[in-house]
Amino acid sequence: MDVIEALHRELPPDRLLTEPGAMAPYLVDWRKLYHGQALCVARPRETAEVARIMSLAAAAGVAIVPQGGNTGLTGASVPLETGSSILLSLERMDRIRAIDAANYTMTVEAGCILQKVQEAAYAADRLFPLSLGAEGSCRIGGNLSTNAGGIAVLHYGNMRDLTLGLEVVLPDGRVWEGLRALRKDNTGYDLKQLFIGAEGTLGIITAAVLKLFPLPRQRLTIFAAAANMEAALPLLARLRQASGDALTSFEMIPRVALELAMAHVPGSFDPFAQRHDPYLLIELAAGSEGIDLRAMIEPVLAAALEEGLLADATIAESEARAKRLWFLREAVVEAQGPAGASIKHDIAVPVAAVAAFLAEAKPVLEAALPGVIVYAFGHLGDGNIHFNLLQPPGVEAADFTALTGALNRRVHDLVARYGGSISAEHGLGRLRREEITRYKSEIEIELMRRIKAALDPQGLMNPGKLLPAKS
Amino acid sequence: MDVIEALHRELPPDRLLTEPGAMAPYLVDWRKLYHGQALCVARPRETAEVARIMSLAAAAGVAIVPQGGNTGLTGASVPLETGSSILLSLERMDRIRAIDAANYTMTVEAGCILQKVQEAAYAADRLFPLSLGAEGSCRIGGNLSTNAGGIAVLHYGNMRDLTLGLEVVLPDGRVWEGLRALRKDNTGYDLKQLFIGAEGTLGIITAAVLKLFPLPRQRLTIFAAAANMEAALPLLARLRQASGDALTSFEMIPRVALELAMAHVPGSFDPFAQRHDPYLLIELAAGSEGIDLRAMIEPVLAAALEEGLLADATIAESEARAKRLWFLREAVVEAQGPAGASIKHDIAVPVAAVAAFLAEAKPVLEAALPGVIVYAFGHLGDGNIHFNLLQPPGVEAADFTALTGALNRRVHDLVARYGGSISAEHGLGRLRREEITRYKSEIEIELMRRIKAALDPQGLMNPGKLLPAKS
Repeated sequence: MDVIEALHRELPPDRLLTEPGAMAPYLVDWRKLYHGQALCVARPRETAEVARIMSLAAAAGVAIVPQGGNTGLTGASVPLETGSSILLSLERMDRIRAIDAANYTMTVEAGCILQKVQEAAYAADRLFPLSLGAEGSCRIGGNLSTNAGGIAVLHYGNMRDLTLGLEVVLPDGRVWEGLRALRKDNTGYDLKQLFIGAEGTLGIITAAVLKLFPLPRQRLTIFAAAANMEAALPLLARLRQASGDALTSFEMIPRVALELAMAHVPGSFDPFAQRHDPYLLIELAAGSEGIDLRAMIEPVLAAALEEGLLADATIAESEARAKRLWFLREAVVEAQGPAGASIKHDIAVPVAAVAAFLAEAKPVLEAALPGVIVYAFGHLGDGNIHFNLLQPPGVEAADFTALTGALNRRVHDLVARYGGSISAEHGLGRLRREEITRYKSEIEIELMRRIKAALDPQGLMNPGKLLPAKS
Repeated sequence: MDVIEALHRELPPDRLLTEPGAMAPYLVDWRKLYHGQALCVARPRETAEVARIMSLAAAAGVAIVPQGGNTGLTGASVPLETGSSILLSLERMDRIRAIDAANYTMTVEAGCILQKVQEAAYAADRLFPLSLGAEGSCRIGGNLSTNAGGIAVLHYGNMRDLTLGLEVVLPDGRVWEGLRALRKDNTGYDLKQLFIGAEGTLGIITAAVLKLFPLPRQRLTIFAAAANMEAALPLLARLRQASGDALTSFEMIPRVALELAMAHVPGSFDPFAQRHDPYLLIELAAGSEGIDLRAMIEPVLAAALEEGLLADATIAESEARAKRLWFLREAVVEAQGPAGASIKHDIAVPVAAVAAFLAEAKPVLEAALPGVIVYAFGHLGDGNIHFNLLQPPGVEAADFTALTGALNRRVHDLVARYGGSISAEHGLGRLRREEITRYKSEIEIELMRRIKAALDPQGLMNPGKLLPAKS
């Protein structure tokens, strides 16, 4: 094709992959749900190269699929099967351009691996607080494009809240230079908000100015057994209040998940002598040694034990112990694989409604499919639950996954009744782009389409993702 | 006109003002820079009435100027002199629809006065942290439409950061129902981000879901004399670190401002025996009685005094004393009036660059207009300085204000060199909408125009504001 020839001519030789074997890893998503095709894989090293690729593609009317670490869970970073688009990987744009500790900011390229960003901040005695399971391989551009969440949103917010400025290559190849490092700026529409969370459908984020925070000088990690789900909410409110809002994580793990982790993930263990349900993994952080987190929190835990909100609780006495407790949180994710097929939901409801939602949802699902294992865990502190369903004993995996649509419907209809979201932190991608039409008003879908048409009039950016097909 | 007749026919009788005397207060801005005209003033009580007005106006091709408390500083809430638009006041939509203390959210209508929102949160043992000089008369819709800042942005963020959901009447009269109360939701473009800070140019915000926070159980207020501007930045960083990020305000007051306040504003006083420049008004808040703010902060202040970063410091020993210190901060604003004519700038630079910016800016302005009083004060903690210029002795007010454009240019060109913003928290409105073309790239202006055309294709929303006229 002409555009490939033009790219070969204009870019240094190592920037383009066209061999099927070399392209293969870029064309399948992390969950292996989607196997796409592409004209080529472009791996630019500079913003100017991204701009040149976009400009040539726009002139030829060829679509572009941007990709970061390719760890997404909705298929947003993989091209369609048509093979008519260019896969543009940002992985080689992985420079940290600047760290300004005094200004509490850093400027990074889209291809930086999240963990590398965390480490660079740490080296400057600062915290970059975004933290999630894939942090060793996901990249900042993907975090931005999905408005990533993770385990510290309760205190620090989503990726959107952590971003001060962006550099974006527009669909026509021009560069919008919006790399501002300002805490306040009200000079027109806040364009960066459009590109954050747009899943690559409006332009290519090539760099960002991120907010940094004081590095915590101490952490307190608590593993607790709640009397029941209803008890978790007052505990959350009391801990926020008593700690001066120092609560950074408030994660929920059901008994069934701990048991599967112990069965399938070596190193998993039960922190308590008795069985309980659910467990809470709680973390607080303080920027100063002078704050006695333990003294603030112990009375709250003691009162909760006394009143019967908590059945048991243990405070990690060392960093090693804290790591082992956090290992359980990761093991709970990992245990789903060996446990068989699963149907996953990344939902959010208002924080105060989580217990009621779970109490209503569980019997609905168990009635719809007797024996199904409701495996609901996650970020209770911000209302975001990974409401997953595991293959019931005695049911074939294929028969189970054939029910995906019907079970999604049950879960998401209930989420909608609670004023919730059917994708709290994973985005829509390809997986949920049609389903969303059931839960969003026509007006909202129409406004989204108008924005898409305004910023990507040729419709070349990441086709088939986020926006529903026109009916 | 037909549209006025239609409005009279369709709305209850008290909703419309057409008498010039009754309309007059709505047609001039707070600073009395702009005296507009309107076909009528509409004062709807319900979202449905707003929708009806918008629908009739759209059908007739008549423009709409939304207005909240009319306390804006850029003329955004006042119609043009042409008299061809409808002034739509949200003042009667002032219900607090819901407070959910457990969920840390409240749902309020656009016409709620900010102070009423603060008080309602307080009554529910929660904090709504937005706080600014006009809080007794500004309204939430205006705070949203300008992405208001104020004195606690350092810790809690701008209005944008405090908003979870919006209800918006679109230019064609349809209602976008986006009143979500979720901490995480990634299901497409985040539309609310467009309407926040849009100064009423894309639609009418009629209600919002706001974030609440634990009510601080204690505050510590400090008035300090810095050795010089350069000393302020390390002090800011140390206080953030030592307090576990409990710093909520870090305001700067120059000596010249304190002196003018003492001369013109009764009740003003000098907290110290010696003269110093500049002063810092610092506040920390803690959600718990169990945190010893004083014990955390005193060593930092002592070290800063020892090292010569601070010349003096006083901690308020009572709430009454803290109020008197905050009174000085307000007096500094008020003292500008009696001091003569002023040319105001609401600028931001990266926090770490404030001292360097001021050191460079002051002599430039003093050279441009000998005798001019550089009256730069404000939100040092987030880099937002109200860089105002006061009439020099011996220069007529009219001669001084005639220099506004030239002096703006000097200040704002320097701000741009520091990667700053020429409107940190006041917006563009009418005052800065042309000037911004000098500081924003053509690409950015073009993207703003495309968004405007996408959401308000008839161009009826608040014409002549925010967007520059087409050249």
